[in-house]
This record gives sequence, C-alpha cells and structure tokens, in this order.
Amino acid sequence: MIDQSKLPLREEFFECEDHRCVAEAIKMMKIRGAPAIGVAAAFGIVLGVRNSSAGISSELIREIEVISEILSKTRPTAVNLFWAIERMKKVALDSRNLGVEELKSLLEREAISIAREDAETCRKMGAHGSTLIADGDNILTHCNAGALATTEYGTALGVIRAAHEQGKKIHVYADETRPLLQGARLTTWELMKEGIPVTLITDSMAGFLMSHGKVDKVLVGADRIASNGDTANKVGTYTLAVLARENKIPFYVVAPMSTIDFNISSGEEVVIEERNSKEVTRICGKKVAPEAVPVFNPAFDVTPNRYITAIVTERGIARGPYAESLRSLSSRQETGGKS
Amino acid sequence: MIDQSKLPLREEFFECEDHRCVAEAIKMMKIRGAPAIGVAAAFGIVLGVRNSSAGISSELIREIEVISEILSKTRPTAVNLFWAIERMKKVALDSRNLGVEELKSLLEREAISIAREDAETCRKMGAHGSTLIADGDNILTHCNAGALATTEYGTALGVIRAAHEQGKKIHVYADETRPLLQGARLTTWELMKEGIPVTLITDSMAGFLMSHGKVDKVLVGADRIASNGDTANKVGTYTLAVLARENKIPFYVVAPMSTIDFNISSGEEVVIEERNSKEVTRICGKKVAPEAVPVFNPAFDVTPNRYITAIVTERGIARGPYAESLRSLSSRQETGGKS
Repeated sequence: MIDQSKLPLREEFFECEDHRCVAEAIKMMKIRGAPAIGVAAAFGIVLGVRNSSAGISSELIREIEVISEILSKTRPTAVNLFWAIERMKKVALDSRNLGVEELKSLLEREAISIAREDAETCRKMGAHGSTLIADGDNILTHCNAGALATTEYGTALGVIRAAHEQGKKIHVYADETRPLLQGARLTTWELMKEGIPVTLITDSMAGFLMSHGKVDKVLVGADRIASNGDTANKVGTYTLAVLARENKIPFYVVAPMSTIDFNISSGEEVVIEERNSKEVTRICGKKVAPEAVPVFNPAFDVTPNRYITAIVTERGIARGPYAESLRSLSSRQETGGKS
Repeated sequence: MIDQSKLPLREEFFECEDHRCVAEAIKMMKIRGAPAIGVAAAFGIVLGVRNSSAGISSELIREIEVISEILSKTRPTAVNLFWAIERMKKVALDSRNLGVEELKSLLEREAISIAREDAETCRKMGAHGSTLIADGDNILTHCNAGALATTEYGTALGVIRAAHEQGKKIHVYADETRPLLQGARLTTWELMKEGIPVTLITDSMAGFLMSHGKVDKVLVGADRIASNGDTANKVGTYTLAVLARENKIPFYVVAPMSTIDFNISSGEEVVIEERNSKEVTRICGKKVAPEAVPVFNPAFDVTPNRYITAIVTERGIARGPYAESLRSLSSRQETGGKS
C-alpha cells in the first residue's frame, strides 16, 4: 500500500506480512480514510489467518477473534473498521464446518469482495452525487475523502471526479486540514494528478471564501453517521457546516452505507479519538509551539443533522429527516435509483 | 526588538539603524500586531530623520514624506500603521518653523509618547475588558493580541492579564492560527511566561470546543475597525464569530481607538492583504503541499458587526449599534468611565 503519511513528498509503498503490521499502519495513519481502513482491516484478517498453524476451524475462529481485537483497537471513530471486521467474522462463523484451508480462502475472497464493492460503491456515489453538482461550481472540501481514503475513486472526491468526467467545469478549494494536513498533502496531490483545478487554503480561510460568495457547495466524507444523520468526520467539518448554513451554501456528506451506524441514535454516542499532542506542537517533525504546552487534539467532530443538506450514498441521496430516509435506503434492495 | 518570526524556538533580538530596516521587519512580520506596527512605524520615522543631512526643516519634511511612503507600503490592512505615520507627519508639519535638530527631537518625543500611550491604553482596555470576565471562564483567543502585538500588556491578552491579576481563575484556549502560527508560537509562549493556564488547539478545533460548552467567551484583537463596528482581524476571526453566535457565546473585540477607521463606513472598504503562497505550502521551511499547487492566502477577514457582542477600547466598552457607540467614544474626553 502507499504510505499516506509520506505523501506528497515521497510516493513510498509498504507491504504487510501480518495483521500486526496492518494494525500499526492504521494507527500511524499510513492507511487512513474510513472506507480504506475497513478494506485494510479485512485484509489484515486474511494475513493474520494465513500465518496460522491452526489444525481445525474452531481454533482458527478463536484466532480470528484475537486478530479482530487487535485490529479493532487501532482507531475508535470510523465505523467501517468494525463493519468490515464483523463481516469477516460472520463469514468465518457461518462456515465454521469447513476445513481450515477452505475457510482461509473463503476469507480471502470476502476481503477481495469488500475491496471490489468499495470501488463500485464509490462510483455509484459519484453517479448519484454528481447530479447535485452544476457546471462552474466552486466546491469546498475538507481532509481527504478521495481515492486514498477508499479502494479507489473516493467518496466526496468521487463525486467531484464524476462531475469532472461528465465535463462539468469545477474548481475545488481544499482545506489543508490541520493537524495532519490531509488536504494539503493528499487532496491537492490527487486532484492535480487528475487535472481537476484545485486551490489550497488553510482551514481558517474557508469562512472568508464562503462569506465572499466564492463557494457554491461543500462536500465532505464521513467516519461515522448516526442513524439520525449526525455525522462524525475529520475535526473542522462541524465548523464548515455552520459556516455553510450561515452563508446559505449546501453542505453534502458523501459516504457508503457501511459508514452509517444504525446502532447509535445520535452523534452524541460517537467515541471521538484524541490523538497525540505532538501532531499539534510539531509539523512534519518541526517544533512550532513550546514543547510543554498542554494540547487538546480531537481527531473528529460531530456535525448535527440539521446542518446537512443531504447525505449521498451508493443507494441514493438521503435528505432530512434522516432517521427515516437512511433507514429506508438501508432496507431497500440496492438499485440505481435515487431517493 | 524581539524577532517574533523566531519565537518560541529562539529569543532573538534585532536592532534597526534606519527606516528601511523597520519597513522590512514589518513586512517580514518580525514586528507584527496592529498597535506594535504603529509604534514601530513612528520610530521608523525617527530613525529615518536621524540619518538625514537636511539643512532646513522644509527639506526634512520632504524626506519624512518619502520615509512615510516606504513605511506605509509595508502592510495594507492594520490602520494603526497609517494612524501613527499621520500623527508623526502632523507633528512635523505643525512645527515646520522649528530648526532641523529641534524638529528631529520633537519627532523622537512624539514616537516615545505613542509607545507610552499604547502601553497605558492596553492597561485601560484591560481594566474595562476585565469587567466582562468571570471567575472560572474558559476564553478562546485567536492569533496573538498580546504584549508582543503592542508596546506591552496586549489588547485581548491584556484583558486576560488584567482578569488574571484580579485573581480570577481563567483558562485560555489558543488557536494555533495558521498560516504563521502566531497562536502556537506567541500566545502560548506569552501566557506560559505569565503563568496563565493555556491549551493549544488547531484552528479547526474551536468549533468542537464551542459546541461542547467548553468556551465561555471569545476575545480577539483587531487590525482595523470600520466606523460601523465591522472588524478586520487575522483570518479565521470571522469563523470564530459565526461559531460563537451559533453557540450563544459572547464574542468580544479588544482594540485601541487608534484601530477604528472613521473614514470607512463598513468592513467592505477594508483592503485585505494577500500574502505569499509559501506561507501555506511550507511550515517553518518544511514543504507540506505540492509545490505547484495554487494557493489563496488572505491575511485577514472581516467580521460583520452583527456578530460582535462588544468592542472594548481604552475609553470604555461599546455595544451595537456601533456607528453611534464608537462615534460617541471618539468624541468623549478620555476618562475611566464605561459605556
């Protein structure tokens, strides 16, 4: 996989031989983005069982439990991680009567399916979401919800890619996204590769642009969406949503159904990961603040559903009230239709 | 003067022998903060005339025009720069009948007065503003409106200092303030020296704190205040004001009367300085984005008056409608009274 922590200065790839390596890569954000984390965790289980010397399936299943535990302790907020792990565990449990080798290859096929589906899902979100984008739009995005955050194509950037492929002339403002600068490092890099015009700003400049009529739409990804539509995403997203509403700019969340956590009724139940203070006091290794200063470093924030104009999924576009519209998308057979 | 661009890693001082050095220091933000820029410009004129070989006052006055032109072209937004230059020029013109040496020493005394008054002004703003601060308050601030931005004591941080000196237990959240990190580098450093508890956050985290009830008040400085109260300040300030109103948190601007520009009727007339793109693509010299990426880098934004709970000046506290309250403070003889 590409080491996202090194981009855009170096395009370095790394390989994992076991699940511990995958867990570490997720924790250190070499792999990041909710869908990408889910896919990586699925392959983490495949690598974990590949090295197993279990003689019988029940033993292998006990090992899968341990592997899953390690992978699930990497990052608490993105629900796709837990969704992918659960899906892999279910395959194992449903086929516990098979032999060890058969089970191993079944798990590998499931991980490949998860990755393939993720790529398809992104293209479907792109198709649905691009109906919201007009020729000439200036779109503001935060963090990186692109190909790097998924198997390929991206969520919010997937919608932008789809609109661009349709010949719509769009321009993107990318928030740099402190502390880890995913916008500056990853989103600009992706869009420039794709030939989609992009302008980089610091997070504090989004309000300036919005209040000057320079932004037509805001598009972001999500790390976990509660069943009522409250959306946890990279810290700073809530601020953009408030600014967008204040300036009457549509605010769209783009995420696969696997990002929706129907087990929680609101965003208040989302566990927000707090990360190391050095992410704030140092930038790319350079000290930028007194070493001893106390730091608060939440990785995500929650945008209440009332700020969200629509949520774009692979099954269509949901609008408020989200408790109903998301549930309805969830129970619907997957089609090309839009809500 | 202390080189603010090196803090907090190095406490380096530099000396200027002429006005060109002062102009360069302002442009490069070794000296920054609206009141400090004004004081520095006044001394820049003193240094400029000190080296003059003018034989008669009218010649010296022509040189002052040239020196003023150079100093006034350093940064367009902070009005204190122009205010101080005009004040110095007026002294020269009013005393053009004096001899050259007398005029030079008159200008030096005027610059010293401007610096002394600035220090007094900060303490008065502290006295007025601290009446707004309650024991136990969590105060969010942006950029650096402290001793470093003034002769001493500070504007927004002066209010915090005054409240702290009165024994109020307050805690400050400091926005790091990208791109130049004045919050991370300067505000934390000042407050830690003073023993005032401070926590550093990235600019994108202020919304998280406000929406979680962790901020009681927002205090910022200003670079230029229009006669209707619209306030130009470090980019990101508008965002904080919108977030504060959304979360029903008082939003206070602290600035001396010299920051109010009665020549403009609204914030729309403020010239917003755009700075070099490398401030965004590099942090402390480290590349953080693709070199070729287009960047938008406005140094300031304008907060419309409707978001501002009150403006604290050395003459008292103004509340909306500001066109009236600011005019009334301006025409009032300076007293200890509050509005």
